[in-house]
Amino acid sequence: MSLSQVAAGLDARDPLAGKRAEFELESQMSYLDGNSLGAPPRSVAARLDEVVRKQWAGRLIRSWDEGWWQAPERVGDRIAPLVGAAAGQLVVGDSTSVNLFKALVAAVRLNPYRPEILVDATTFPTDGYIAASAARLTGHEIRRVVPEEIPAVVSERTAAALINHVDYRSGLLHDLPSLTAGLHASGALAVWDLCHSAGAVPVGLDAAGVDLAVGCTYKFLNGGPGAPAFLYVPAKWQERFDQPLSGWAGHADPFGMTEGYASAPGIARARTGTPDILSMLALDAALDVWEGVTIEHVRTKGLALGGFFLRCLDELVPGTDVLTPRDHKRGNQISVRWPDAKRVMAAMTESGIIGDFRPPDVLRFGLASLYVRYADVLRAAEFLSGWPG
Amino acid sequence: MSLSQVAAGLDARDPLAGKRAEFELESQMSYLDGNSLGAPPRSVAARLDEVVRKQWAGRLIRSWDEGWWQAPERVGDRIAPLVGAAAGQLVVGDSTSVNLFKALVAAVRLNPYRPEILVDATTFPTDGYIAASAARLTGHEIRRVVPEEIPAVVSERTAAALINHVDYRSGLLHDLPSLTAGLHASGALAVWDLCHSAGAVPVGLDAAGVDLAVGCTYKFLNGGPGAPAFLYVPAKWQERFDQPLSGWAGHADPFGMTEGYASAPGIARARTGTPDILSMLALDAALDVWEGVTIEHVRTKGLALGGFFLRCLDELVPGTDVLTPRDHKRGNQISVRWPDAKRVMAAMTESGIIGDFRPPDVLRFGLASLYVRYADVLRAAEFLSGWPG
Repeated sequence: MSLSQVAAGLDARDPLAGKRAEFELESQMSYLDGNSLGAPPRSVAARLDEVVRKQWAGRLIRSWDEGWWQAPERVGDRIAPLVGAAAGQLVVGDSTSVNLFKALVAAVRLNPYRPEILVDATTFPTDGYIAASAARLTGHEIRRVVPEEIPAVVSERTAAALINHVDYRSGLLHDLPSLTAGLHASGALAVWDLCHSAGAVPVGLDAAGVDLAVGCTYKFLNGGPGAPAFLYVPAKWQERFDQPLSGWAGHADPFGMTEGYASAPGIARARTGTPDILSMLALDAALDVWEGVTIEHVRTKGLALGGFFLRCLDELVPGTDVLTPRDHKRGNQISVRWPDAKRVMAAMTESGIIGDFRPPDVLRFGLASLYVRYADVLRAAEFLSGWPG
Repeated sequence: MSLSQVAAGLDARDPLAGKRAEFELESQMSYLDGNSLGAPPRSVAARLDEVVRKQWAGRLIRSWDEGWWQAPERVGDRIAPLVGAAAGQLVVGDSTSVNLFKALVAAVRLNPYRPEILVDATTFPTDGYIAASAARLTGHEIRRVVPEEIPAVVSERTAAALINHVDYRSGLLHDLPSLTAGLHASGALAVWDLCHSAGAVPVGLDAAGVDLAVGCTYKFLNGGPGAPAFLYVPAKWQERFDQPLSGWAGHADPFGMTEGYASAPGIARARTGTPDILSMLALDAALDVWEGVTIEHVRTKGLALGGFFLRCLDELVPGTDVLTPRDHKRGNQISVRWPDAKRVMAAMTESGIIGDFRPPDVLRFGLASLYVRYADVLRAAEFLSGWPG
């Protein structure tokens, strides 16, 4: 059987195949960049129109009392099951970077008298930049270490560690339960960045006893470009969660407009300013595509897509330097090293196969199970096999 | 001539009268709450549809290189003339609270060895909460003082003062040039909150030599509920501007993804995370209503609306306790004390006259010149004169 026959068979039997129709994607588009910017669910444009015309124009200021003010917690509760969190522990708003700052300062306040923060040395840059800034303000030292070395490095000096669940460059999936347990054994807190795992792989935040986590919603959650991020504060820490961006929206009585700050009970204390409603409700609409789908479905297909892509590369482009682990220790992403990566990705994009390039020489292919077809990954491998062609 | 004849004449001669048609407002709606949430310009819904369908769906990740990434500075440059700033000094993004945090920490770093931050005691609460948090992290003392007393209180101990241009409760307009000059005379920096003045009154940031400023875009700039805020960093301070939310979007080479943080040149260093594009471009569309209008036009009408409203109150509800200065030391807002303020505002809202209530007993009426009619303020005064009716 040819690879294209195999792909056709896999697509025909794919239980998620019908989901692609819920996205605004042309049929000839092979979109393998959902790990950078998720594709738009069809429900988003109509919802935004409704929010502007019916809620904003029709109800004006009254809409704040008719669902807007509570949207950060309500939308958080919709994301919670995808990352293994019970309700009441996620809030949506601000950027990932801003939430990282809240989480890191709060973490060292939860775990005082320990001078050091460990930071994943393979992290997406913003995590390291924000950690350095937080440490400068709180007087902590930053120690950069690859996640695998954390168990050997963590000590009674460690207040917290900030780790990415999936390495944005290689696609390596770290062992969240085991690394979390290792940190806890030394009395350190585990702060996880879920940007590349939320909506792609099961996370199991509550089960692992994660202390704090942040994640973005514009990748595998399809919330839109720069959509608001989320912050997870588990019930066990909420009462002591003491965050530095203590704006009015996290106040116990925001409309009382009192002089002193008093944290709201529960997850609401993780809020900062007035919630950005247009983006928040676009994300809310985008989450409708999860109806009838669990994260396990998405993960199963993601691994199968990755496995098939690796098979295609092996057969069509033997010798390709695959950065991503071939076993299941990977996110829903395959990365390969390619000498003229920037040029080949520009040419692929021209031909309707969109992945992305990370300097200096990495091609990344995101496998967003809700709309990527087996035929798409075959097409990417075929393009590479014909390059330069 | 009756008041309604006067109102009709004023509306007939209003050079801004045609602007109301650019907003999605029913003709029977008297919307006097644009100082809390501006009304939606008609261009917003169509633009959002275009951003979702043509840019996000049609171009997918490529849109980041086709205008999205630079949007924070580009939209900032559209707001700049409204607040008296030359281009290249405003960036749009994050909430007002988040920008306040950036501005205050940056201010004390610009002016070290001074232990005190003065905070406007009449401020909107979030400013005080954020200032307290910033001071806790930087080791500064907060001293709360009403703006009028700042010249007497500022000293060589003062690093910076955070002042609201317009008092959100009373509508009092502070003298920005004079207070700024007074702070400078003691070597202190002036940080202004323009939430209630941007889009309502001339601000003159550059002319006054303001050091840093923040403002929101969802009031008189009509950007939408929770629309992204702006941060002003004048050219004189950009090279030394050292802000605490140093995320990847403010990096000199964000896509280089290097380990260490290096601030971008210019205003871009005030950025933090990935820009929130849906909200940003909704605001961009909303700013189209300023075509052919200057802030001076808006201010002239705002004062005239306020003057007429005061006349209506004097004639129809004599003895009303007006909190807002009757001279021109006010923003485009009139506030009155009213015993059962909460109840009367609920009833007014029911009848299609929307203002707002601030505890314990203040009624606020925003005078957004682009869509408020003289007939609207007369209607509000008539309602109060018939209460309880």
